Amino acid sequence: MVYGALEAGGTKMVCALGDENGKILEQVSIPTETPGVTLPKIVDYFKGKEIKSLGIAAFGPVDVDPESPTYGYITSTPKPGWADCNIKGYMEEALGVPAGFDHDVGGSLLGEATYGCAKGMKTAVYFTVGTGVGAGIMIDGHIHHGVACPEFGHILMRIHPEDNYKGFCVYHGSCLEGMACGPSIEERWGKPGKELKDNDKVWEIEAYYLAQACVTATVVISPEIIILGGGVMHQESLFPLIRKNVKEMLNDYVRSSATKDLDKYIVPASLNDDQGIMGCIKLAIDAVN
Amino acid sequence: MVYGALEAGGTKMVCALGDENGKILEQVSIPTETPGVTLPKIVDYFKGKEIKSLGIAAFGPVDVDPESPTYGYITSTPKPGWADCNIKGYMEEALGVPAGFDHDVGGSLLGEATYGCAKGMKTAVYFTVGTGVGAGIMIDGHIHHGVACPEFGHILMRIHPEDNYKGFCVYHGSCLEGMACGPSIEERWGKPGKELKDNDKVWEIEAYYLAQACVTATVVISPEIIILGGGVMHQESLFPLIRKNVKEMLNDYVRSSATKDLDKYIVPASLNDDQGIMGCIKLAIDAVN
Repeated sequence: MVYGALEAGGTKMVCALGDENGKILEQVSIPTETPGVTLPKIVDYFKGKEIKSLGIAAFGPVDVDPESPTYGYITSTPKPGWADCNIKGYMEEALGVPAGFDHDVGGSLLGEATYGCAKGMKTAVYFTVGTGVGAGIMIDGHIHHGVACPEFGHILMRIHPEDNYKGFCVYHGSCLEGMACGPSIEERWGKPGKELKDNDKVWEIEAYYLAQACVTATVVISPEIIILGGGVMHQESLFPLIRKNVKEMLNDYVRSSATKDLDKYIVPASLNDDQGIMGCIKLAIDAVN
Repeated sequence: MVYGALEAGGTKMVCALGDENGKILEQVSIPTETPGVTLPKIVDYFKGKEIKSLGIAAFGPVDVDPESPTYGYITSTPKPGWADCNIKGYMEEALGVPAGFDHDVGGSLLGEATYGCAKGMKTAVYFTVGTGVGAGIMIDGHIHHGVACPEFGHILMRIHPEDNYKGFCVYHGSCLEGMACGPSIEERWGKPGKELKDNDKVWEIEAYYLAQACVTATVVISPEIIILGGGVMHQESLFPLIRKNVKEMLNDYVRSSATKDLDKYIVPASLNDDQGIMGCIKLAIDAVN
């Protein structure tokens, strides 16, 4: 049995075929232009491959409410052409198969919870830290949505005492995304993070904000694990710094089996940046079961 | 059919009888001393009343994991005598009926979600702002627990620019509870909140912190409603101030049906401070169904 997987990102569309064990059989990447140009290319890729169903994890905001008339749409994005794009409906009609649908970071969490480091867990949080910052939350084995898609990247931050940066978010300035996304590092320090690998102050400040996000996740959600993925997290020195800050910030208040060992509680994504597309395979599998 | 309800607080134990519609038939209050003194008094009250089951919402930390060996215990409280108190087991054995169990603020939320302003809703957040600050979270109709009980009162705060107060929380100083609980108002201003009703600055600062809590609840949980109860919330002027701050902080970023009308989204508790005990009636009903 072959399943289709579509990780619909703002810069590229990753299309893949997978099997029932989440194994990626083949994979291509198509640049994200306008829907009129890009969606037919995606259809061309999947056509004739005899997929049983498709799983889509899309950049947002998306409508993930199955009872909404715009379920499966990319909704109010500023990205030219993509606002109110019925990506799920388009694919289902063009390919004649059912499609599962979630937001991008929900897909990544689903990948980790099905095939990766959160396998078997019921409650988990996955942060992506890259061009933007977002989080997927799994509660009792289901990706949490609420009324609108949660926007964890926009919690307000306590400002690091040595940080004068005003923040990258056009809506909130110094929210989590504003202070910790990849572009905020570049704007704050004058060059991109990958050229700042050995500048300890950069990562001390970055870790301070990401630790606050982990503290909020801990006291609000109380998950079994917090996974951090995305481009910024390739700076591996961040992990011990985040754990150190989390320990100081929680100050031994929360006594749960999960937070006892922070090395196992706050961890990098485990699927070599395939967590998103593997989550799409799971969405496809669930769409027919 | 008569159900027993026990709202087990740190200063008093409210015991009540209720019917299947959540109606309180009678109610007494017993001071919270040591378990050896207080628990037998509670049993005496319920004995002979032919209750079908009991619902307990208790001060914490409590163990709410049905698979844990200490399920139904008050666990690591500093309150003399109450640490590791198996309150659920004690009551079940003494009264010979099954007991439902949750933490106190979960009980209040359950009351509002069953009989009050959140009736029929699936996703809701209830903050209690009094001696401490805590929150109950309902997701897909169930009170959320996670690994340990969430401790929403301990999210870190951005400090109000005119506030020099260091915070009341012995663990975190300036967390939500540290900056917004009743005792923090008294310590900051030199007298209790009820003597500061007309001091606008007091409530402007209080609203700034409670608004941050509402923003975090909104972007992390995306609920249909946020209910604020507890003693501090009897200062009714807080509600418009909180909504104003939330509007500014969200800055039109979140576009959900829930946040469109903040007057209906951020609301006072609706059950005349009976939400906790009415939630216990629901816990009792659920314990036999």
